[in-house]
Amino acid sequence: MTAKQRFRSDIAWSTETNITVHGLDLCSEILGKVSLSDMAYLQIMGRLPTPPESRMFEALALTLVEHGLTPSAIVARMTLAGAPEAMQGAVAAGLNGLGSVFVGSMETAAKILQEAMLNQHEDTNVETMAKTIVQERLATKQSIPGIGHHMHKPIDPRTVRLFEIATELGFNGRYVSLMVAIGNQASEQLSKSLPVNATGAIAAIASELQIPWHIVRGIGVFSRAIGLVGHIVEETRNPMARQMKKMIETEALAHFQTDQP
Amino acid sequence: MTAKQRFRSDIAWSTETNITVHGLDLCSEILGKVSLSDMAYLQIMGRLPTPPESRMFEALALTLVEHGLTPSAIVARMTLAGAPEAMQGAVAAGLNGLGSVFVGSMETAAKILQEAMLNQHEDTNVETMAKTIVQERLATKQSIPGIGHHMHKPIDPRTVRLFEIATELGFNGRYVSLMVAIGNQASEQLSKSLPVNATGAIAAIASELQIPWHIVRGIGVFSRAIGLVGHIVEETRNPMARQMKKMIETEALAHFQTDQP
Amino acid sequence: MTAKQRFRSDIAWSTETNITVHGLDLCSEILGKVSLSDMAYLQIMGRLPTPPESRMFEALALTLVEHGLTPSAIVARMTLAGAPEAMQGAVAAGLNGLGSVFVGSMETAAKILQEAMLNQHEDTNVETMAKTIVQERLATKQSIPGIGHHMHKPIDPRTVRLFEIATELGFNGRYVSLMVAIGNQASEQLSKSLPVNATGAIAAIASELQIPWHIVRGIGVFSRAIGLVGHIVEETRNPMARQMKKMIETEALAHFQTDQP
Amino acid sequence: MTAKQRFRSDIAWSTETNITVHGLDLCSEILGKVSLSDMAYLQIMGRLPTPPESRMFEALALTLVEHGLTPSAIVARMTLAGAPEAMQGAVAAGLNGLGSVFVGSMETAAKILQEAMLNQHEDTNVETMAKTIVQERLATKQSIPGIGHHMHKPIDPRTVRLFEIATELGFNGRYVSLMVAIGNQASEQLSKSLPVNATGAIAAIASELQIPWHIVRGIGVFSRAIGLVGHIVEETRNPMARQMKKMIETEALAHFQTDQP
Repeated sequence: MTAKQRFRSDIAWSTETNITVHGLDLCSEILGKVSLSDMAYLQIMGRLPTPPESRMFEALALTLVEHGLTPSAIVARMTLAGAPEAMQGAVAAGLNGLGSVFVGSMETAAKILQEAMLNQHEDTNVETMAKTIVQERLATKQSIPGIGHHMHKPIDPRTVRLFEIATELGFNGRYVSLMVAIGNQASEQLSKSLPVNATGAIAAIASELQIPWHIVRGIGVFSRAIGLVGHIVEETRNPMARQMKKMIETEALAHFQTDQP
Repeated sequence: MTAKQRFRSDIAWSTETNITVHGLDLCSEILGKVSLSDMAYLQIMGRLPTPPESRMFEALALTLVEHGLTPSAIVARMTLAGAPEAMQGAVAAGLNGLGSVFVGSMETAAKILQEAMLNQHEDTNVETMAKTIVQERLATKQSIPGIGHHMHKPIDPRTVRLFEIATELGFNGRYVSLMVAIGNQASEQLSKSLPVNATGAIAAIASELQIPWHIVRGIGVFSRAIGLVGHIVEETRNPMARQMKKMIETEALAHFQTDQP
Repeated sequence: MTAKQRFRSDIAWSTETNITVHGLDLCSEILGKVSLSDMAYLQIMGRLPTPPESRMFEALALTLVEHGLTPSAIVARMTLAGAPEAMQGAVAAGLNGLGSVFVGSMETAAKILQEAMLNQHEDTNVETMAKTIVQERLATKQSIPGIGHHMHKPIDPRTVRLFEIATELGFNGRYVSLMVAIGNQASEQLSKSLPVNATGAIAAIASELQIPWHIVRGIGVFSRAIGLVGHIVEETRNPMARQMKKMIETEALAHFQTDQP
Repeated sequence: MTAKQRFRSDIAWSTETNITVHGLDLCSEILGKVSLSDMAYLQIMGRLPTPPESRMFEALALTLVEHGLTPSAIVARMTLAGAPEAMQGAVAAGLNGLGSVFVGSMETAAKILQEAMLNQHEDTNVETMAKTIVQERLATKQSIPGIGHHMHKPIDPRTVRLFEIATELGFNGRYVSLMVAIGNQASEQLSKSLPVNATGAIAAIASELQIPWHIVRGIGVFSRAIGLVGHIVEETRNPMARQMKKMIETEALAHFQTDQP
């Protein structure tokens, strides 16, 4: 920073002939040479990924792009119906719902894993760590994020695939083991099958990639932005927001037709 | 659609063991096999790109990720300062500004190109088409989007690079020629150098990729979402929103200290 | 502005002991003395309203607060379900849909009225003006905003009441007459009953209040913000977003259960 | 709810001739009869306020409308500059920043007051309660919301006025006393003057009005929506967002001109 400068940003700057992003020349070093996923990694981590990091990070992002008619997709479609001239507002509206409930569980899982690892000796057994984590959360009536799934049974297929890729690339380290152990401990203590779901798998692998837990949500945010643009494209071609609204209204206000005099 | 079904979506659905996106199995056909940029193409176009389409589309998206301290980046940072627990809201706020002025010029340029091509015989000279377009817009006092740049002179380096990649991959077709011709015509009619800028290059190449003009803005929206997450990461580590606010307030309210009794 | 000042705002400023808003002392001249609706008028028009303006403006705002389970209310509820810790994001998401389709029709109606009046002699007959407006819009296949209603028949009860208040307060001037004449002309030319709806009534009365058409949407925006907070309160007490989502998903993806092998 | 109904809303519904909101007929019982502030109270509390509740609630809302060039106002202006056709998006962007830092301190103060009162005998001395609260928060290194102000000294003039109105209307009860006691205790324990600020005053008075703490933020949200529309109106007439952006960019990137070779 210069002597009198009050704040500074180091991400990007331009001159008449060049644009520099995180120290790389946009035209000669990024365009046509870097993948979009690596660019996202660059934005988040401040450097380009190694080849294994690149493939692993891309798999995480891909998992988060599209989940069908989630609330965020419905929100984007309904918003577009009211403001078709402002597609950006429809995506913005959809992103606003990526909070503690949906994308947040991934963040909390990553936080649990990273804090546990930070506070433990390197040789502490992950089983022991998992046992403590599960016991403490159950004792304080907190949910255990990253395990179980209401639909995917007996196991979330994304977890299987993500852990397979992680193993291939050498990211099946202690965070992954701890996450699996948490699923096992929770299954045992709660006497039902609660294997690691996609959320937990992403949290564990993001931790292997040394992505700080408070940034993990960001991967969900930009990936879902890609997904929401897809829903907007379909909504434009095949509008359904009005029908959705009508169906909801009919259901929610049915009692006024029947209960009221 | 089934007999009584009121609306349907064809993007994605899940069963106990599978997640299908645009007809592809997420785990076996997408994760670890498709790039994030191809996934975005799949969401927008409903099919995976060919290899040249893939590289070309990725270059467009990359160009739009990061532009330094743009209004959308400042907006995301200031929003984060007020609600650090809701990073998704900061990205959403930033995206809301991607309207007719910033991202919209790309959309309008694509619209002009696509409508001109739709309404003309295949053998109409692009120079003739460009002349008409420029004359009509000047006559109706409309700006000509996609040409000139306040900083990058004599030419926007992104245009050079994007057109280079387009040539390499075989996307330097009639839309690109028309865009270049519009720049030339405008330069001539307005007697100043107005070469195609990044916005115009993206509009032309997106048209070569047969992306409908009203969807072009979507590429800007998801790419900027990636960029904004980067600004949020820097803001978290190196907060500057409060200093920005203070500087603005001091400037904007200076007259109350000096003009008022 | 001071000699070197680059920009200035005249809305509000603070000293150690005072806060001034539009020239009024917040504590001694606004709190406990001005109504919330008058404060909104002050923000928009830069001065406090006269008593009739005050009552008229308040009626307009009140009409726009609550419309039941509109898309914006559904959007706010679904967003809250994903991010219950960020109520502001749920309201923001809901507001994003107040574009050209919903709130925009009010804006367009006001624009038509204000531009017509601006371009005509004071003694031009409103019937003649209305005839021209309706003919021109039908000829160019543009909809006529502010008339007809899919549910409220034979007439929108809000129009009746708003025009009644306008008459009482002396705001039943030429804009109101022109709006009514447009409804009559459209009914005649399209051979069906298309009386002025709430949107048209608000557009006409806002014009009587000399509110520029491009600001009219703002009344809808802040009024709906009040309404959306109400929906968030109900959603918190009686959550229904998940059920809504389930219902939509079941309907939209029904074909995958029936059409697919 | 009807036998098979999956969810229901009780806020508003329409028939051909009537619109009912919280049990009141919009046209005959609300328009021209209820104030906008009372309508907001109705939306939040499900009933109209008594006259003292009405005046008190209105004073709270008024206090929150306008604070000058806050981050939310800057955000709304910058968003408008990029998307002038989508004013609703500019307000939405501005609202996204009303989180834990700005509006949230009001919420936290209300939570502290309401939880303390809930857990104590009615005759527990507020001084004792305040002492415990302050000690506990200092011991756990949590900030004490609702006290002190960086600019308004020796006391926030809004607090003085709000407490004056509260006294007049009979809302100077135990919550107000507890809030004042917290300010006193904090001043004593931290050896500096930390009187109740506007945030604390609103939290205390909202509690007197029996508004649940998790809804208090909602008052800030809709009030700021009114304020932001005001900033948008000024920005439209007197654009300053580009100048703001330029000033920030120049400052933040200064080191590239000076530090770099």
